[in-house]
Amino acid sequence: MKTMIADAGGKGGLRIEERPIPKPGPKQLLVRMRAFSLNYRDVDMLRGAHGALPPSFVPLSDGVGQVVEAGAEVSRFAAGDRVSPTFFPDWISGEANDEVRRRRLALPDDGVLSEYIVVDEHAAVRAPRNLSDVEAATLPCAGVTAWDALFVSGQVRPGDTVVVQGTGGVSLFAVLLAKLAGARVIVTSGQRAKLDRALGLGASHGIDHGAEGWHERVLGLTEGRGADQILDVAGGAGLSRSIAATRIGGTVSLIGYVAGRVAEFDVVVPIVRKTILRPIGVGSRSSFEALVRAVEVNDVHPVVDSVFPFARSHEALARLASGEAFGKVAIVFE
Amino acid sequence: MKTMIADAGGKGGLRIEERPIPKPGPKQLLVRMRAFSLNYRDVDMLRGAHGALPPSFVPLSDGVGQVVEAGAEVSRFAAGDRVSPTFFPDWISGEANDEVRRRRLALPDDGVLSEYIVVDEHAAVRAPRNLSDVEAATLPCAGVTAWDALFVSGQVRPGDTVVVQGTGGVSLFAVLLAKLAGARVIVTSGQRAKLDRALGLGASHGIDHGAEGWHERVLGLTEGRGADQILDVAGGAGLSRSIAATRIGGTVSLIGYVAGRVAEFDVVVPIVRKTILRPIGVGSRSSFEALVRAVEVNDVHPVVDSVFPFARSHEALARLASGEAFGKVAIVFE
Amino acid sequence: MKTMIADAGGKGGLRIEERPIPKPGPKQLLVRMRAFSLNYRDVDMLRGAHGALPPSFVPLSDGVGQVVEAGAEVSRFAAGDRVSPTFFPDWISGEANDEVRRRRLALPDDGVLSEYIVVDEHAAVRAPRNLSDVEAATLPCAGVTAWDALFVSGQVRPGDTVVVQGTGGVSLFAVLLAKLAGARVIVTSGQRAKLDRALGLGASHGIDHGAEGWHERVLGLTEGRGADQILDVAGGAGLSRSIAATRIGGTVSLIGYVAGRVAEFDVVVPIVRKTILRPIGVGSRSSFEALVRAVEVNDVHPVVDSVFPFARSHEALARLASGEAFGKVAIVFE
Amino acid sequence: MKTMIADAGGKGGLRIEERPIPKPGPKQLLVRMRAFSLNYRDVDMLRGAHGALPPSFVPLSDGVGQVVEAGAEVSRFAAGDRVSPTFFPDWISGEANDEVRRRRLALPDDGVLSEYIVVDEHAAVRAPRNLSDVEAATLPCAGVTAWDALFVSGQVRPGDTVVVQGTGGVSLFAVLLAKLAGARVIVTSGQRAKLDRALGLGASHGIDHGAEGWHERVLGLTEGRGADQILDVAGGAGLSRSIAATRIGGTVSLIGYVAGRVAEFDVVVPIVRKTILRPIGVGSRSSFEALVRAVEVNDVHPVVDSVFPFARSHEALARLASGEAFGKVAIVFE
Repeated sequence: MKTMIADAGGKGGLRIEERPIPKPGPKQLLVRMRAFSLNYRDVDMLRGAHGALPPSFVPLSDGVGQVVEAGAEVSRFAAGDRVSPTFFPDWISGEANDEVRRRRLALPDDGVLSEYIVVDEHAAVRAPRNLSDVEAATLPCAGVTAWDALFVSGQVRPGDTVVVQGTGGVSLFAVLLAKLAGARVIVTSGQRAKLDRALGLGASHGIDHGAEGWHERVLGLTEGRGADQILDVAGGAGLSRSIAATRIGGTVSLIGYVAGRVAEFDVVVPIVRKTILRPIGVGSRSSFEALVRAVEVNDVHPVVDSVFPFARSHEALARLASGEAFGKVAIVFE
Repeated sequence: MKTMIADAGGKGGLRIEERPIPKPGPKQLLVRMRAFSLNYRDVDMLRGAHGALPPSFVPLSDGVGQVVEAGAEVSRFAAGDRVSPTFFPDWISGEANDEVRRRRLALPDDGVLSEYIVVDEHAAVRAPRNLSDVEAATLPCAGVTAWDALFVSGQVRPGDTVVVQGTGGVSLFAVLLAKLAGARVIVTSGQRAKLDRALGLGASHGIDHGAEGWHERVLGLTEGRGADQILDVAGGAGLSRSIAATRIGGTVSLIGYVAGRVAEFDVVVPIVRKTILRPIGVGSRSSFEALVRAVEVNDVHPVVDSVFPFARSHEALARLASGEAFGKVAIVFE
Repeated sequence: MKTMIADAGGKGGLRIEERPIPKPGPKQLLVRMRAFSLNYRDVDMLRGAHGALPPSFVPLSDGVGQVVEAGAEVSRFAAGDRVSPTFFPDWISGEANDEVRRRRLALPDDGVLSEYIVVDEHAAVRAPRNLSDVEAATLPCAGVTAWDALFVSGQVRPGDTVVVQGTGGVSLFAVLLAKLAGARVIVTSGQRAKLDRALGLGASHGIDHGAEGWHERVLGLTEGRGADQILDVAGGAGLSRSIAATRIGGTVSLIGYVAGRVAEFDVVVPIVRKTILRPIGVGSRSSFEALVRAVEVNDVHPVVDSVFPFARSHEALARLASGEAFGKVAIVFE
Repeated sequence: MKTMIADAGGKGGLRIEERPIPKPGPKQLLVRMRAFSLNYRDVDMLRGAHGALPPSFVPLSDGVGQVVEAGAEVSRFAAGDRVSPTFFPDWISGEANDEVRRRRLALPDDGVLSEYIVVDEHAAVRAPRNLSDVEAATLPCAGVTAWDALFVSGQVRPGDTVVVQGTGGVSLFAVLLAKLAGARVIVTSGQRAKLDRALGLGASHGIDHGAEGWHERVLGLTEGRGADQILDVAGGAGLSRSIAATRIGGTVSLIGYVAGRVAEFDVVVPIVRKTILRPIGVGSRSSFEALVRAVEVNDVHPVVDSVFPFARSHEALARLASGEAFGKVAIVFE
């Protein structure tokens, strides 16, 4: 089978290697992969931004495929089922802790960019029936992160105002899912064309965050009350504006640090406004399963920017790295 | 001004009385009422089902009107605002307790079926801008009860399955609001025509609850998992079927007792299934305000069955008592 | 090794069988058992009250022992560690569902009353350092159930009033743990001597539940407010008294059905009082681990009624069945 | 009656003025004050650190007194009751919002440092029966803030590890209350003598926060797991150490900014560790009432540093400003 390998600590780029098809253990699934999607984490990692990498490893954490063989003790799935592996293979449900966060796909565990992979049955989720392979492959990190921000860490209710920064993978899922829950969605972006597309997905308002005072625009749009929840992907000093744009008792979800890793803010402001700062990451398998139900019941379709064949996986990475993508960048077997 | 009076402990029916327009205190509003809506509670009360009544009182708790005078210390509203009084005038937010539940509209306090009423400013809520007077008048009890069941006591998320028993006032609001939140809604009713209309409001499935095994139909529709939440308006022995139709760890919301006041069930079933039984009633002002935001942001319109002029209020009561209504029965000044 | 076997569907009583010591798999532990404790579930099961039993099985779910061998891939424990197996071997954390509740110790899985057992490493919890073997063996069902009632399903805070029915295993843990959390504890029992012993454990008041109106005593002791939480082990028609004794918005935890399986109450009462009925059972591994921390930090010691040698396990069962025990009945290897 | 007045924007110090005893309105109480306590907020305010002040005002928010007259419509209290006014007079229960936070004692409303004050009956709380006047006067801000951190915003459970920074008013209440709830309490301070006194109150460990790596000490004391909750009163760059010392999924409560108003931390750390940053302030009346129950049920006594007569109120302020106090500084009528 063909497996994509990132070499020399990721610095040597990607190459395809021929490997034997692995054998599933008694509680494992052999999955023939069909589609994959990329996250900035993959780009960063292959650039070495996450620290030292092993000499070679299989990249990418998100994908979908078909079970072709189920181990003798498997009870949750059968051959033919279409599944995605979960990012944290051992996190089933409940709160995160050190133990369940130890294993992660695409380091320290191998990733999924391969013709076949073996997955613990407890680390697989049935893909939504209404999605194509490419669409289904976009859920595991970006979809489950947005879900957690809105419905597990947060509790978005109809009529709430949710501000989503940017139009990256998590952000676009947040637009779709917050809208689905009856919320009013405000998107910020530095690019007018992307704002327009976000409005097309159901956002009510788009704000140019390069302009002065996007947080004041949010206050204006909410009659001075502020947003119920803000998904902050910028980090840095801009965090103080997110806090200012949130209602008394509202939540700023810390998701990214596009504008800088060092958060800075006057601590008196969240104390006076009772703003909760709540970090968000990929959720548990239970969150993924809830997302699948939401996607099926409401026939939600993720936004796909572009699809590349397996052999041109490096072009997919370049597309995502360019910052031009609107929606998820995917890879398929041609 | 004209005020409707229920006489002789409610037994003498309704009569119109001419009274002086009341004066608002420094923190009160004088409201010119425009529309009202009825709840079964009103029917039951006038029948004497809630126990002994005073010799005469003003009936009805739900209505909407325009502020025509605001007391000197009023800060939340101004003349011209369209408002509804809250059912529990002293319950602003947070958990209920004895103190905030002591005062209630239409007994022990006087009700609202009058040309003018005086309301404490803390007991008024701005009516949704997108609703007509009649529509706005339907929210205070039925709408706020459905909201509390789904979003305060419960936490409905997109993709959840919500079962709504019947098509009464609370139930139809629950259909509209659960749908709004991205849930799949299953309605039960003994009348096919009402089920069809509920499907028109966004319900996914209608089940004839007279037929054998409606709870098994729910299990079938959820691949054996059971509903996440069931709004039980029947009470009685049927409660055991609601428990059986709910998923492990799901919630049965106790709202009514159409089928009998004495609940009966094998206590082992909820223990094994971890089913939470959660009583629901009219919520706080804070819940009402959240409902108003949801209604405005999503342009939700309540279902109105029929509208009667003030002078024929008794016909409105008869319409609701008939059991034929689908949606709220309203009263307006002609 | 010696294993206790329940024969002929439990009807033939217990007998000791010599079996080979089992081998742990790569993610399993071989545990040399040291002590066990009994629950009413064990008594009921061996009486056939839980339905048809297999021809023979190993009884009992609660015990503690020492790891004597750890499989090659085990990371959570090492030889020498003292551990207890969890009642639901696959329930790590988060909400219960069908999947995690499928496996249970002492049917459908084999129980623990044996010289050695093999346990999945994810299904073991380190025993509290401050407890003897016998004390540690009392935690897995009774302790974790009380913990869940008070701190997972419930949220007891200092100053809350908690009513505990009876002095069975779960109830005595609830007394100790609620007291630990700064609550005021009221115990009900039909036996004066047991009430006195409960007071010795830290309960503030003991009420004879055979006397008229125990629920009115609770209201009296709380200045009419009612208890914040009641652990109802009686079930049956008495449930209506538990509801009446709970504060507005309080919780009745459904734990048992000593007084009858068919719960009966006027559904209007919990609706008006907003009483939540919340079923309670053994919790997840995560709850067990939190209990262990609480026991260690506060040096809590469970109440042990009596200890029997392994060969006289049937006498231990008889002791528990007698209803005379105050505290847990335990078994040790002599 | 004698009233203390802060003049000339607070810059002119305090002076006693003779004023007429005020009259309570129909829903108000006339309270003869007996004792008061100080918070750093009072010191800061009189220094002008909270911005421009009115020409003259009555300082201090915390006090206790006896109801000497109740308005005609008062139902919650009667003459003779001992009560404290709440810091936010209009915040009864539930979430904070702009409306309930508008009124605050000691600016913008007048404070309580007077022989008599008038209080809305809904803004008063019965004082704990087991406390002296001086002790009871310490609860309204410091006690209710600690309560909110631990039991409203947070949910401390027995066995949790709570880290309390410093030995100020809120911090010492947090030590007492966390201990009461069965938690393990670790206190940090730069003064060994204060650490020793905190240990005497029930703290398990004292860490010199001036020394290198107090956060590593916390990790060491929790077997690498980290604290469940940290009450951060330092703010500034030290916030990153609080985050590092908290367990995965734990909470840092933002309470103060002794070490600097500008919080600075690498946003990746809380994202990876899922640390929630949760601002804390004085809670609602409902929190105050819960605190009173906890104090009574467990006979908790606040730590009082020193008591000054009314005429020497300025000395009380100086004592608090000195940083030497251990416990609350109080004022009484001589």
